[in-house]
Amino acid sequence: MNVSIITIGDEILIGQTVDTNSAWMGQQLNLIGAHVTEALSIGDEKEDIIESLRRALNQSDVVLMTGGLGPTKDDITKKALCEFFDTDMVFHQPTYDRILRLFEKWGRSSTEAHRLQCYMPSNAILLPNKMGTAPGMWFEYEGKALVSMPGVPYEMKYLMEHETIPRLNKKFPGQPIVHRTIQTVGEGESRIAARIEDIESSLPQNIKLAFLPNLGSVRLRLTGKGSDKAVLEEEVESQMMAISDRIEDLIYGYGNTKLEEAIGQMIKDRKLTLATAESCTGGFLAHKITSIPGSSEYFKGSVIAYANEVKINQLKVKSSTLDQHGAVSEATVREMVGGTIDLLQTDLAVAVSGIAGPGGGTPEKPVGTVWLAAGNKNKIKTRLIHAGKNRIKNIEYSSVHALNLIREFLLEEDE
Amino acid sequence: MNVSIITIGDEILIGQTVDTNSAWMGQQLNLIGAHVTEALSIGDEKEDIIESLRRALNQSDVVLMTGGLGPTKDDITKKALCEFFDTDMVFHQPTYDRILRLFEKWGRSSTEAHRLQCYMPSNAILLPNKMGTAPGMWFEYEGKALVSMPGVPYEMKYLMEHETIPRLNKKFPGQPIVHRTIQTVGEGESRIAARIEDIESSLPQNIKLAFLPNLGSVRLRLTGKGSDKAVLEEEVESQMMAISDRIEDLIYGYGNTKLEEAIGQMIKDRKLTLATAESCTGGFLAHKITSIPGSSEYFKGSVIAYANEVKINQLKVKSSTLDQHGAVSEATVREMVGGTIDLLQTDLAVAVSGIAGPGGGTPEKPVGTVWLAAGNKNKIKTRLIHAGKNRIKNIEYSSVHALNLIREFLLEEDE
Repeated sequence: MNVSIITIGDEILIGQTVDTNSAWMGQQLNLIGAHVTEALSIGDEKEDIIESLRRALNQSDVVLMTGGLGPTKDDITKKALCEFFDTDMVFHQPTYDRILRLFEKWGRSSTEAHRLQCYMPSNAILLPNKMGTAPGMWFEYEGKALVSMPGVPYEMKYLMEHETIPRLNKKFPGQPIVHRTIQTVGEGESRIAARIEDIESSLPQNIKLAFLPNLGSVRLRLTGKGSDKAVLEEEVESQMMAISDRIEDLIYGYGNTKLEEAIGQMIKDRKLTLATAESCTGGFLAHKITSIPGSSEYFKGSVIAYANEVKINQLKVKSSTLDQHGAVSEATVREMVGGTIDLLQTDLAVAVSGIAGPGGGTPEKPVGTVWLAAGNKNKIKTRLIHAGKNRIKNIEYSSVHALNLIREFLLEEDE
Repeated sequence: MNVSIITIGDEILIGQTVDTNSAWMGQQLNLIGAHVTEALSIGDEKEDIIESLRRALNQSDVVLMTGGLGPTKDDITKKALCEFFDTDMVFHQPTYDRILRLFEKWGRSSTEAHRLQCYMPSNAILLPNKMGTAPGMWFEYEGKALVSMPGVPYEMKYLMEHETIPRLNKKFPGQPIVHRTIQTVGEGESRIAARIEDIESSLPQNIKLAFLPNLGSVRLRLTGKGSDKAVLEEEVESQMMAISDRIEDLIYGYGNTKLEEAIGQMIKDRKLTLATAESCTGGFLAHKITSIPGSSEYFKGSVIAYANEVKINQLKVKSSTLDQHGAVSEATVREMVGGTIDLLQTDLAVAVSGIAGPGGGTPEKPVGTVWLAAGNKNKIKTRLIHAGKNRIKNIEYSSVHALNLIREFLLEEDE
């Protein structure tokens, strides 16, 4: 089943609202093996809606629309639908009765706009919406299906789950699709590609591999299409295993796992505690770690040692180390790890010191030079990385590498 | 100027990535008076790209594409462009030289994929991309413009700001548009609207006011259109002054000033230093402060006291205070401020302690309960806020309010 998604609303095109509906619908459709051919956002213009509908119904089996059904601007989408289907609006008494009951319950009175909302294209099959006043609408058209839903995310989600998806499954029992995602960190897209080149080039025709890079981490996504879901799952799984075996050292998880979540789980599994000592990342590393619910189980805290005196007074970095090697040096991050473990009484610590920019660079240590250290009181692993010239990007990139250094340290300790 | 946006990538259609590029581009285009007619997301399919390009160039003056320019095999945008323009790829030595220099600097070797990345459609004008290896491409086509940019958000943003927008302004000079933005914090959209209701309702027809709320802060944007730019600027400026006078207490800046930048400037102007003590914000507040270049001038560091023992041992919060009032209390944040000033030897400190969720809430202190304190060694100002149920939003919302508390504290000290 091919699906086109159309989201309607001027607020999307001027960037006041990010369209998250399309991505969520894409995920749900993907799970039932439907193929989304395109996701289109257009403004509140009748002619644009009609034209987009015509084109989408021409190229796809199913068109899912969201937006333009509320009590203020609902006439545009419904008018467009009436014009497209060459039909009229009819008043739908059950919907009006329901709205009146709702308002009675809320102790408020409805407006004329709510009554007008109950006029529906005569050929619409109404989909009950328990989350709002506007029902969804299902239309049959030359063996295809068109579904119009409200744009409010939780209303759309309710209708997708309870009405649209079950009806689509019934109307278009289709060919299975299987996805598997491998999450990697520590190596760039092209190097990973080089390491698995032979696997990639001998993939069967029905399985595709995509690289999705993002600041120090790369997701590898396998997508398979086939007729038998069980066979297909086995095929995709076996390709995933082949790739996983080859780049095992880079993999921190599968599916939608986040790096900070995977590291947290590794620490929790080993019943350890962690603290961070941050200079150039300025708290962003601790923020990533504490963005995970339940991180207080293993994360005790952090010292953000932006000033050298904080490195010296709190983290017990020696003045002589700073004088001899500078704040951005292997010796300094080593001492930061040791000092943090002592100070915050944790099993593990990770330290970052670098030049985030735009100022502070020198010919020997240009902006983007970052030293990392991770370890326990017996052993410390260090790494020098070269980030770029963009301050925010440097901070994020350094944090990803710091998390990866903890991962590598823990794996080495396991051996 | 009418613009179509096309974002390319299977990951968007299956919902693995939310397309935030379109919204950001929509905002920028709106600011230069361009009208976005549609934003389309399509998969990594050559035929779909060509077909979408053809249609978009038919209906709009400008087509902006993002995605599909990286070094791996799933990138087929350039092939589609060559086929569309009926041209060939040519090797672009300067781009290759630049990539080689970058890798040399990074101390790593480039791969064959990077060399192949330097083949470009022969009719492309290359747009230098300082944020990555793939340059943007500008194409002229029957008086229209087509721009292809990488899909990585910070690369796309760099190219939009430094290349695409200036070139579009030059190629399609339109009616003058003037924007002025007032940045406020500490009050909601509807309360601000009520305070300036009379000014808003008497705005001249050619000047519009938009409220752009975002987690604790609201931007007020005046947009004027007219024929004479100098006259228009004066008109918009005078409306801006009228609004500014009315809500002076809420304004922290104008234009694109960030709250953390404005606070930093206030501290710098007063020749003071700052530290943070964070529990529920977990480093995010320090991250916001240190995201500003030059923040090391006034920001010394932070103690992230996630565990109570860190609050007690480092920040000298009394055990009795924690026992009696709990970690999320006015008494605790007061002591955190005092302890931080003593520990990190700063003039000012700000402290946050709250329940970010999803766990940890109680009937008396539900998820979203956050205590804030800001002050110096003589005086401390505190505030209780009620954020929501979403962990990440709570962290961001609390950080905005913490920054605002510093602002209010400094203004009161000035009096």
